[in-house]
Amino acid sequence: MTTSLTDKKTTYGVDIEDVRAAAKRIAPYAHITPIMTCATIDELAGRSVLFKCENFQKIGAFKFRGACNAIMGLPDDIAAKGVVTHSSGNHAQAVALAAKLRGIPAHIVMPNNSVVVKKNAVLGYGAKVYECEPNEQSRHEVGERVENETGATFVSPFDDPAIIAGQGTSALEFLDQTSDSGGRGLDAIITPIGGGGLISGTAITCSSLQPSMKIFGAEPKMADDAARSLAKGEFVPVENPQTIADGLRTSTGKYTWPIIRDHLAGITTVSEEDIVKAMRLVWERMKILIEPSSAVAVAAVLSPELKAIPGIDRIGIIISGGNVDIDHLPW
Amino acid sequence: MTTSLTDKKTTYGVDIEDVRAAAKRIAPYAHITPIMTCATIDELAGRSVLFKCENFQKIGAFKFRGACNAIMGLPDDIAAKGVVTHSSGNHAQAVALAAKLRGIPAHIVMPNNSVVVKKNAVLGYGAKVYECEPNEQSRHEVGERVENETGATFVSPFDDPAIIAGQGTSALEFLDQTSDSGGRGLDAIITPIGGGGLISGTAITCSSLQPSMKIFGAEPKMADDAARSLAKGEFVPVENPQTIADGLRTSTGKYTWPIIRDHLAGITTVSEEDIVKAMRLVWERMKILIEPSSAVAVAAVLSPELKAIPGIDRIGIIISGGNVDIDHLPW
Repeated sequence: MTTSLTDKKTTYGVDIEDVRAAAKRIAPYAHITPIMTCATIDELAGRSVLFKCENFQKIGAFKFRGACNAIMGLPDDIAAKGVVTHSSGNHAQAVALAAKLRGIPAHIVMPNNSVVVKKNAVLGYGAKVYECEPNEQSRHEVGERVENETGATFVSPFDDPAIIAGQGTSALEFLDQTSDSGGRGLDAIITPIGGGGLISGTAITCSSLQPSMKIFGAEPKMADDAARSLAKGEFVPVENPQTIADGLRTSTGKYTWPIIRDHLAGITTVSEEDIVKAMRLVWERMKILIEPSSAVAVAAVLSPELKAIPGIDRIGIIISGGNVDIDHLPW
Repeated sequence: MTTSLTDKKTTYGVDIEDVRAAAKRIAPYAHITPIMTCATIDELAGRSVLFKCENFQKIGAFKFRGACNAIMGLPDDIAAKGVVTHSSGNHAQAVALAAKLRGIPAHIVMPNNSVVVKKNAVLGYGAKVYECEPNEQSRHEVGERVENETGATFVSPFDDPAIIAGQGTSALEFLDQTSDSGGRGLDAIITPIGGGGLISGTAITCSSLQPSMKIFGAEPKMADDAARSLAKGEFVPVENPQTIADGLRTSTGKYTWPIIRDHLAGITTVSEEDIVKAMRLVWERMKILIEPSSAVAVAAVLSPELKAIPGIDRIGIIISGGNVDIDHLPW
């Protein structure tokens, strides 16, 4: 399906101008992350693979881009009442840091079984932590109570145009960085899919600026809701997936699913074993820490399925993050 | 002590022109490694710390620079007979890869208790491996036998002007990369000291190009031979040190010791505990893999001793390498 550039704002709630505005808004706070390559991985993938290293982003993940855009974009009087979110992972830290930079309160609802180091990271940014039971209902109850008591604005982990536009700034930078040298761009791009914020921002950006580019998603076989949704042509939720890629255990949302549906050339699913193998490979060969969610996209690029697709000489991977508990590695 | 620029070749066997020639010689083969920074580490160190990331160099360590310079510099007829060295670590891989790139045989003598993964890495570059007993005598015997039988040229791990010049290319790049943007250079530079190849090349380069720069070394307290040598003013060997920083268990040599003696502003020694803490800090905060030997220099920059030295706003660290056995981490 093709959607003309001017339609995207009406159809999806977010367009390339939102991404450009986000890039400008977060520029004083976010890192321009580097591109890396690895001869060994090029050889294994059968094509040039370019890594956009969001593991080097503030808080160690792309999530800072979206949270920063959403929080910096709030009107002063609304911002003053603070922000609230629920997350036990990178989004919690992203909201906490962005709120700190804006000088407003952050309220983070976390399950009471969260890893201590993650809770401490959020506290370290000056956020207030509220514990909930580790289930959907308790999370919502506590979240709503905090919203009502404080008047804080809810910052969605992914299903919000401001978040999607913020995540799209990584692809915007990526295109800029790869077309600069020699004028040779990317033929395809791939990101992991959890809630779909990163892939949606990437899809809006790349389809607008380089419509010929193939856009792929990657999912664990154990959390393949987006792949099943795409195959069926309608939203399929994920149910309590146990994949090691903890950032990808979420279903897509009402904003992200239509963008995924209309823009992706395909979604590659990979086994838990291949995720761990890809993670090891990147650590050992590239000397960078990537988290399991990022390794999902690397495993996809190394899969026979993706390697068999012709006409792709240069593929870009957005490495979503590098937040790993180095005391508990999966090998 | 000051030595005029033109003296260095006579006094030390290597000068800045050798380093420049090395840079030109290895340019087609070696990576230009990036500079990274980390706000958390700046804060802990009390000054700006710039990381020159040789963990992203070919074979994952600066050692490729020296080996490549030595091997590419051999006359054709001598090179044709191959090269030989003894090493169980990064130098073995560096020689194996440089020889492969030159298209000549590499003979590597390794102790029979070497880690299998390191032996396989060398074999993977097409080198021939000779096992010796894990002691000095056997290593020399096997090495000499291989030299005699093959006519191969010995490539020293550190104590050779061509190796020192090659290792100096990292500092040459570092100065170039840090003076480019805004014209603000480094006030000081620090590297770990094992055999002394890296610090010697760094000292020749920095003292020639920016004589006001302070040059520091870093050593494990458990292998502090260079620090003790510097304190005493004469060469002191190290004896069977058991530090976790396996790249730094060597004494300095007849070329490297005089360069160290005449150029260093000081050598900071650090505990095993501080090495592991610094290694963790870099992994977790910077998302890059560094090996214990590199963490020694990071620990030094975070030490009260180095932090107390005034007049240093910007210090550069050469991160020597990132080759770590990720199945056996020291925490």
